[in-house]
Amino acid sequence: MRAVPAQRDCSVDSKNDKFRLVMRILSGVQPSGRQHLGNYFGAIRQFAALQEEGDSFFFIANLHSLTTVQDPEKLREFTLDAALTYLAFGLDPERSTVFRQSDVPEHSELFWILGSLVPLSHLERAHSYKDKVSKGKNPDFGLFSYPVLMAADILLYAADKVPVGKDQKQHVEFARDWAIKFNQTYVDRYDPADPNGVENGRPGIFRVPVASIQPETATILGVDGQKMSKSYGNTIELFASDKKVKKAIMGIKTDSTAVEDPKPTEGSALLSLLKVMANQNDYRILEESWRAGGLGYGHYKKTLLDLFHATFDPARARRQELEGDLASVEKVLQRGAERAREVASKQLSEVKLAVGLA
Amino acid sequence: MRAVPAQRDCSVDSKNDKFRLVMRILSGVQPSGRQHLGNYFGAIRQFAALQEEGDSFFFIANLHSLTTVQDPEKLREFTLDAALTYLAFGLDPERSTVFRQSDVPEHSELFWILGSLVPLSHLERAHSYKDKVSKGKNPDFGLFSYPVLMAADILLYAADKVPVGKDQKQHVEFARDWAIKFNQTYVDRYDPADPNGVENGRPGIFRVPVASIQPETATILGVDGQKMSKSYGNTIELFASDKKVKKAIMGIKTDSTAVEDPKPTEGSALLSLLKVMANQNDYRILEESWRAGGLGYGHYKKTLLDLFHATFDPARARRQELEGDLASVEKVLQRGAERAREVASKQLSEVKLAVGLA
Repeated sequence: MRAVPAQRDCSVDSKNDKFRLVMRILSGVQPSGRQHLGNYFGAIRQFAALQEEGDSFFFIANLHSLTTVQDPEKLREFTLDAALTYLAFGLDPERSTVFRQSDVPEHSELFWILGSLVPLSHLERAHSYKDKVSKGKNPDFGLFSYPVLMAADILLYAADKVPVGKDQKQHVEFARDWAIKFNQTYVDRYDPADPNGVENGRPGIFRVPVASIQPETATILGVDGQKMSKSYGNTIELFASDKKVKKAIMGIKTDSTAVEDPKPTEGSALLSLLKVMANQNDYRILEESWRAGGLGYGHYKKTLLDLFHATFDPARARRQELEGDLASVEKVLQRGAERAREVASKQLSEVKLAVGLA
Repeated sequence: MRAVPAQRDCSVDSKNDKFRLVMRILSGVQPSGRQHLGNYFGAIRQFAALQEEGDSFFFIANLHSLTTVQDPEKLREFTLDAALTYLAFGLDPERSTVFRQSDVPEHSELFWILGSLVPLSHLERAHSYKDKVSKGKNPDFGLFSYPVLMAADILLYAADKVPVGKDQKQHVEFARDWAIKFNQTYVDRYDPADPNGVENGRPGIFRVPVASIQPETATILGVDGQKMSKSYGNTIELFASDKKVKKAIMGIKTDSTAVEDPKPTEGSALLSLLKVMANQNDYRILEESWRAGGLGYGHYKKTLLDLFHATFDPARARRQELEGDLASVEKVLQRGAERAREVASKQLSEVKLAVGLA
């Protein structure tokens, strides 16, 4: 959903945030590991473009990460890694709001208030929760409550657009359902058929968000041929040292096809990584030679390594600069939290008044 | 458990809150209705005495009430009613900290953080949740999560003593279990056999609380003979007008025993209310005449009305004064929230550092 949302069409009232003209975009990353190629193609790649589209909030979802990372040193490391990644890939703190979720207590406050009217049955049928538990994760309260905190994250900023992967679609739909339920409970003559009051001028307390499902990207394969994932230990980290990157790429699992023979295209991690990294034209040529045979896997690995550096070296250099001045990065996060709290606390005040807490 | 807790015996370190000498007491009431006779005998009666025992925090659990009160006007009314009740029954804001839960965002923040390691199975076997759902309440997320917020309430103030009714015993045990689990997860060489570090000087992040189960009071019967409860509409409100109190008491359901006959003692709401309101001596005399016969129910109702006024008129008068100066009451609550946040934010900072959010 790259289209401009319907709210833009309604009458303009510059004093009323509910009828603002500027689109508000919210996106978050979980600091549950060091950012890698899979994260890049799944999310990071679009950051800089998103900030061009409207008033953008990018947060580091460290509260969410508590459900998976219970080592404080790691959580701090991954949180900093996420902040540096945001900035290295071109988020501009002058235009976007970049912050740590835990610096904005309003997320937790809304989490409880919103949760008071969430039916338990919704959470019991959350795909992501069921998936994780079926894969052997402990059914903890944090994992179970995850969608409620995520809904609070979204509703706090009255986001129009929430760019998410397909696996998060249900969570944004929950946020919609609960926003509507809350509005129906607490706003007189609220009309769920006109959830943002575009027709009748009676918006709810919560703006009802729309998921913007990101175009399906090919599953990024890790160096062992499985899906690239921190939990499989098969990632190529975006900001590892040159040496480590080389070691990871040269270590991609391949079969024993001889140099002169045509290479099998099915299930090749190396070929699939070349496909996502190279431009279409270059990839066509690469694939032709792959099918023809005559070049060894080492040649293609070297090509992938070159592509990696050509693609990421500018961001890697920016990151190195940022690492030399962590105090400034911390300042960016603190200023971001202040700006986020300006918006979040206003929304929360309205909520508290509506429910009778104020 | 009126005994001084074990912590008092350990070595004194006045700069370390963990080894303080003064006992800390925490108690809360839910503003889910106007306070009545049942609330008085269940909780309010001991407030003034509790504040003599140590550093006491009395809060109005309005976040909890969101699970039952979804009318903002009512929630505001009941919240003020609870504040006035605290003060009318002798809580002294100079000695105790009286505050609204929702004014202290740390409750919600700790709720999420603590929840991240709470096993879902604990909540599924919570008696109070199961009871409420079996009585027809919707199984909402708020109701289900209740024990986690309650544990956060307790742990935030490092309370030594949490006076609760028998029905809340399991909730305090949960708070203990989760405090210990958190300490084990995040504190090196933490010893659960010495949960507060009394022996080895290694206290956890959370002080492990002890429930102080209040002596069983007789179930207070309402005017219709069922248990007195707001939800049955059979209460005698502590602060209703004289006229309404009289109407409620004179309307207590009785049978058709003739004036001259002995009155049945079993299941009589009127007799049971006389028993809790009168002193032992007076009650003995009342019960003798009740069994002997010769006086009508009207006589006993009149006696109960006199007892009501003799017992509550001082508090009722104080409340009337307070109602004439609501701005001061609001100030008490605001000062209370400030004092509560001093303690709560210190505890939360320690928690955030321990888990890696700071």
